[in-house]
Amino acid sequence: MTASTASAERAPLPAGLDTAAAGAAMHALIGELYPICRSITGDGFRQTLARLKQEIPLEVHEVPSGTAVFDWTVPREWNIRDAYVKNSRGERVIDFRRHNLHVLNYSVPVHSRMSLAQLRPHLHTLPGHPDWIPYRTSYYREAWGFCLAHRDLEQLPEDEYEVRIDSTLQDGHLSYGEFLVKGASSQEVLVSCHACHPSLCNDNLSGLAVAAFLAKRLQGQPLHYSYRFLFIPGTIGSITWLSLNEERARNIAHGLVLTCLGDRGGFNYKKSRRGDAEIDVAVAHVLGHADRPFACVDFSPYGYDERQYCSPGFNLAVGCLMRSQHGQFPEYHTSADNLDFVDAAALGDSLAKILEVFEVLEHNRTYLNLNPKCEPQLGKRGLYAVTGGTNIKQRELAMLWVLNLSDGSASLLDVACRSGLPFAAVREAADLLLRHDLLAPVPQRGAIAVGRS
Amino acid sequence: MTASTASAERAPLPAGLDTAAAGAAMHALIGELYPICRSITGDGFRQTLARLKQEIPLEVHEVPSGTAVFDWTVPREWNIRDAYVKNSRGERVIDFRRHNLHVLNYSVPVHSRMSLAQLRPHLHTLPGHPDWIPYRTSYYREAWGFCLAHRDLEQLPEDEYEVRIDSTLQDGHLSYGEFLVKGASSQEVLVSCHACHPSLCNDNLSGLAVAAFLAKRLQGQPLHYSYRFLFIPGTIGSITWLSLNEERARNIAHGLVLTCLGDRGGFNYKKSRRGDAEIDVAVAHVLGHADRPFACVDFSPYGYDERQYCSPGFNLAVGCLMRSQHGQFPEYHTSADNLDFVDAAALGDSLAKILEVFEVLEHNRTYLNLNPKCEPQLGKRGLYAVTGGTNIKQRELAMLWVLNLSDGSASLLDVACRSGLPFAAVREAADLLLRHDLLAPVPQRGAIAVGRS
Amino acid sequence: MTASTASAERAPLPAGLDTAAAGAAMHALIGELYPICRSITGDGFRQTLARLKQEIPLEVHEVPSGTAVFDWTVPREWNIRDAYVKNSRGERVIDFRRHNLHVLNYSVPVHSRMSLAQLRPHLHTLPGHPDWIPYRTSYYREAWGFCLAHRDLEQLPEDEYEVRIDSTLQDGHLSYGEFLVKGASSQEVLVSCHACHPSLCNDNLSGLAVAAFLAKRLQGQPLHYSYRFLFIPGTIGSITWLSLNEERARNIAHGLVLTCLGDRGGFNYKKSRRGDAEIDVAVAHVLGHADRPFACVDFSPYGYDERQYCSPGFNLAVGCLMRSQHGQFPEYHTSADNLDFVDAAALGDSLAKILEVFEVLEHNRTYLNLNPKCEPQLGKRGLYAVTGGTNIKQRELAMLWVLNLSDGSASLLDVACRSGLPFAAVREAADLLLRHDLLAPVPQRGAIAVGRS
Repeated sequence: MTASTASAERAPLPAGLDTAAAGAAMHALIGELYPICRSITGDGFRQTLARLKQEIPLEVHEVPSGTAVFDWTVPREWNIRDAYVKNSRGERVIDFRRHNLHVLNYSVPVHSRMSLAQLRPHLHTLPGHPDWIPYRTSYYREAWGFCLAHRDLEQLPEDEYEVRIDSTLQDGHLSYGEFLVKGASSQEVLVSCHACHPSLCNDNLSGLAVAAFLAKRLQGQPLHYSYRFLFIPGTIGSITWLSLNEERARNIAHGLVLTCLGDRGGFNYKKSRRGDAEIDVAVAHVLGHADRPFACVDFSPYGYDERQYCSPGFNLAVGCLMRSQHGQFPEYHTSADNLDFVDAAALGDSLAKILEVFEVLEHNRTYLNLNPKCEPQLGKRGLYAVTGGTNIKQRELAMLWVLNLSDGSASLLDVACRSGLPFAAVREAADLLLRHDLLAPVPQRGAIAVGRS
Repeated sequence: MTASTASAERAPLPAGLDTAAAGAAMHALIGELYPICRSITGDGFRQTLARLKQEIPLEVHEVPSGTAVFDWTVPREWNIRDAYVKNSRGERVIDFRRHNLHVLNYSVPVHSRMSLAQLRPHLHTLPGHPDWIPYRTSYYREAWGFCLAHRDLEQLPEDEYEVRIDSTLQDGHLSYGEFLVKGASSQEVLVSCHACHPSLCNDNLSGLAVAAFLAKRLQGQPLHYSYRFLFIPGTIGSITWLSLNEERARNIAHGLVLTCLGDRGGFNYKKSRRGDAEIDVAVAHVLGHADRPFACVDFSPYGYDERQYCSPGFNLAVGCLMRSQHGQFPEYHTSADNLDFVDAAALGDSLAKILEVFEVLEHNRTYLNLNPKCEPQLGKRGLYAVTGGTNIKQRELAMLWVLNLSDGSASLLDVACRSGLPFAAVREAADLLLRHDLLAPVPQRGAIAVGRS
Repeated sequence: MTASTASAERAPLPAGLDTAAAGAAMHALIGELYPICRSITGDGFRQTLARLKQEIPLEVHEVPSGTAVFDWTVPREWNIRDAYVKNSRGERVIDFRRHNLHVLNYSVPVHSRMSLAQLRPHLHTLPGHPDWIPYRTSYYREAWGFCLAHRDLEQLPEDEYEVRIDSTLQDGHLSYGEFLVKGASSQEVLVSCHACHPSLCNDNLSGLAVAAFLAKRLQGQPLHYSYRFLFIPGTIGSITWLSLNEERARNIAHGLVLTCLGDRGGFNYKKSRRGDAEIDVAVAHVLGHADRPFACVDFSPYGYDERQYCSPGFNLAVGCLMRSQHGQFPEYHTSADNLDFVDAAALGDSLAKILEVFEVLEHNRTYLNLNPKCEPQLGKRGLYAVTGGTNIKQRELAMLWVLNLSDGSASLLDVACRSGLPFAAVREAADLLLRHDLLAPVPQRGAIAVGRS
């Protein structure tokens, strides 16, 4: 089955999507996942994968602590039951049960009594946002600590405090979820999201929810590409996957890291390290034909797992799609990134846009005009208006563009970009011309050289 | 005879042109051609060529109906004697004799009586411009119809109408005119204009007039390039010519489609499909050194015969020069595109600018600085001011630029573009340097690679 | 000794520079050189070199008149003792002793009596700046003349004047100064300035002073590049040097012509003919990270000795650094370009910026990330913050950029440009990574291809 056979058999990927309903369902899923205390390892992560398994048949991998993964080592597994700071009257003045951000993520166990002065270096706050609890971690150096609202810190009196973190840090496993939606080709589209953050909705429960719903949507469709979904802990997760799947990574033709897809802002797309990969052009094209401003920002080696996918030894064509950019909205990595901060409509819109991008990738082929000398007579085939006047329809214009540029060097996405027409119009024109034997697919799926080499 | 020999023998092509007189003469020619009812075939087209033959020794070609030309077939020949709609009192309420736009061009013969309701689907108007008659055609599907002012349509009462179109559509010929001004080289500059529109002045009697006057001006000049002028019916004419002259088309080094050159607007140049061909750079250079804003627009496969010349199987370096762009002025393809709409001064200016472009093409060569290590001492050759001060003359600056960039990779047009100097100044500097043995022409006329390959 | 060994041994070139003190010292040096009447040959030039020799161990070359240097010939040597115009009462109405600009530079001897009308063609003024004396020369055609304030010219009555120019123009030598600061490599950085102008401070005593102080600063430093300083007469000096040192010129990897570096304006950098040479990128980078607007202008073959260095037979990577551009400030080539027009602070700033540029050149290397698959774990090496939060330090960001882009194709300057980080931060990051065996230098000093080929 060729790509175009596959594509001819089904409606466009975003067609018929009820974005409002999908958005509401994703928001509800986020609501269920929100209370779980996740980290880069441990049962919170496993619980999260278990819940996602109700949506899609995820395969869960367990990688033992101590496994060498490139320059890194899979860390010991962290689990936590309880944590608090009690005052001398036995009242919990900081209580993990009220919010899991209260504990410095990956804190080693501690149980001790101490003065405020002794406790103080272990307390993290945000003076600029005195009501918000910050999110802090210490994965790779043993430490313990608490995070709290600055206003609460200011009200802590001198006292003798009981400090307890009932956690364990011991050999175990790093868990991650993986799901492959098989298409006709062994070439893959990677969808990766970090699932290690505790109660933070935009970063990155929104990414999890959108990825899960993408996978649900693609399942059972006749697809050209295979789509690989990864639900991994940030950094160590992508390093682990790449280390264990070095050969398989060669099949990744395009990819997106998904995060911060639930807030009400416009889109920000961070380009792959290559900068002009097919995925970069496809995302810019889809966002450019939408009705809202967006930004494409250049790659930088700081951010999410694209850091690893785009490391020079892999240099994969993987970008990162966000609405508001990490670090650029005040709620980022604080307790204010909560269920109110993410919006069902925004989640639905994010899902729809990514499906549009995948639709472009699925159908982006290079064709050869079989009648390259002058235009073919479209009118005699019923493809062209017969009464000459002053206007030309988009469909006809799209056919002229496809015919004119299809010399084997330009993909349909190139035609869309150069003509300013939406990809769907260009692709429909190509399909019409194909059916009239005016085009032939170029055998090698060439498309944009940089994106495919 | 080499190109530079040729060029040295004559004054610049636009030198001494009386643009006012030429403009007036072109306007008068348009006035003579205006009443003729042209179409893509037929006697109106032949009459037009006959009138042009009084200006230049045009060769008239006749291609039989039914001739296969690539994917197309030369259509049957259309001729018309009369056409009208009469009311029940025998009055001509629509009368071809009053304006040839009244008939849907290529209407099949009809003679019948019918009610207004039956007639109505055959009537074309422009509600947005109720006093203008639209121009409509139906070349490739048999149909008949009338075009009229919307205001007149609104006043047509219920009645029984006599409808008559006294036309013939039968095997005959497609006619076109061709004229070659021979230069030293077999490489050609193509000047193409569509001559199939009936009483429409800007589109494209202006193109015909300017092309004819260009040919008159070039005749008898010692030229480097040969200049091929085509007066053809739109679309089918260029397809026919390309089909019958496939080998000859390989000699076309540069080309311009001429249309809409008589209105009072600024220039619009539509670039060739290549986008950076020498003709594209030359036109932009000439227009950029003129005193009026202009626009260069990217190629698109919709417009005039550049669609065929730039089809991927030919991909010729042919752009399209216009003042106002087709479809972007309200008078386009209506009876308002009349003798008042075109202006003698604009026609003269169009002629002058194209001559300037040809002047650039004629003299655009690549030279080698024979003294490439440091500047040669221009002063001792009398080429440089001897008293050092604060200013340098354009002539001296042009010599320095030519010397500096003439390493074999830059043509004089490249030097003009990079220096910001007018081409004429750069060329004069090169001539001076040549005479002082400081330059040598690069044997292969290289110029801009894209434009010549 | 490799480049990086050299660099590791010393502080950055601009470190610890007392720009105020250096600026004051340079201004004082200019003050000493100001009264000397220089020309392209002669004792004034020699006196200037002698004074510079007190600063740096300059080698003085003497090239005999008549020596053929490419297309030119070393001219006869010009010396002048006195010059004046006396009125009939014996009063010096124009007096060389008052200002050496009063004499047309290179005037042949004259002693004669004449009327004002006869004298007039030999008098040069600036009507637009009636109080200023213009600077005029006639090196390559025998002439004599006087320059004076236009206001003074207007007050000259009819009279019989005694005109005397006590000059000699005879076989002698062209003198120039040269100084090489040796570095580890035979590749050179050229610093060239014209030292032929008489009492003109910005153009170009400022260039002389800055060049001399650069040389003083570089002496004794462990350097990668060798730095060649040329103090030459304009045009004929660079032609002479290039002619006598054609082989040596091949070693010039980068270069700067220095002029107009003492005025209070912002920087103007005129790029090399190549336009994207490493020196061009380095200067733009340094100026771009400074706190004041600047401009990079494209190369043109008019200006200073970059005309010769960038002639097509050499095409060296030599740009020209200025503050205000020659010809674009009214004081240019007039008596108003005096000691008040140049500013100690501006001179100090010019010196500091060029040292920063040299610092970039010295350390611009290309490295290979030895751990190219995913990021190395910087945290375990103490190179990365261990508590995850919202911010990242510039040092860490710089390390991530160096690691990500060091695939052998990008130099540190490329990394700085793409990341937007200052070069020093990028270089420090590279040094850290080198010390942790995470990078290896690419054997061939590759850097920017254009700048090195």
